[in-house]
Amino acid sequence: MIQKAVSNSSTSFGSITMTDNALTSDVPVNSTVVGQSQGFYAGAAQRELGFLMAMNFAFKTGKYNGSTITILGRNTVFSKVREMTVVGGSGIFRLARGYVEARTKWFDPKTGDATVEYNCYVLHY
Amino acid sequence: MIQKAVSNSSTSFGSITMTDNALTSDVPVNSTVVGQSQGFYAGAAQRELGFLMAMNFAFKTGKYNGSTITILGRNTVFSKVREMTVVGGSGIFRLARGYVEARTKWFDPKTGDATVEYNCYVLHY
Repeated sequence: MIQKAVSNSSTSFGSITMTDNALTSDVPVNSTVVGQSQGFYAGAAQRELGFLMAMNFAFKTGKYNGSTITILGRNTVFSKVREMTVVGGSGIFRLARGYVEARTKWFDPKTGDATVEYNCYVLHY
Repeated sequence: MIQKAVSNSSTSFGSITMTDNALTSDVPVNSTVVGQSQGFYAGAAQRELGFLMAMNFAFKTGKYNGSTITILGRNTVFSKVREMTVVGGSGIFRLARGYVEARTKWFDPKTGDATVEYNCYVLHY
């Protein structure tokens, strides 16, 4: 967390957290790393846990190596499925459009650590 | 820099830098100013220099005067060419789609100052 939430917030409102997480081909953390998920989520809701997400999926191995997908959207992390917009990408994903569906597969309330599955539906050339 | 990097980061991870730079028609800093490049880049990578960029090119002279182009993407500043998404724009660039290619033309490692060329490939109406 690089910016703390506003003092009386129970929903992390105003916080900004930068993330650089492994992108893996499957849910287990030790499955094949295919890239990194880099960006931030910012607490943007006062009455629920709702984050504004700006994220780049940077692929580093496999057929998408060197390409990125860029996501901007709203992540209500305790919802079962969260849909966010693919606003574009680079390389193979140049001029891409689409959306992702995020589902939490594992969550440790003590540390806040989680494994989130992103199904990406991307139209690209 | 409006937000410092996390303490032990050698890649500026967690930093947020706001920029308001002249957009010039050519590489030399004293070439014709056509607008401003306004937005931020955030250190989003822990093992390389990789920034999440959110930027508006605001044109202030010439045929694009009053229009903007909006960019969101990943900028690995030491790569030769960095491709980022044009997510849209305003005025002439309303509903625009496309991408930019950023190339560093001049860089002063002491100050961190740089001149970056942005080739913009934009589909617009």
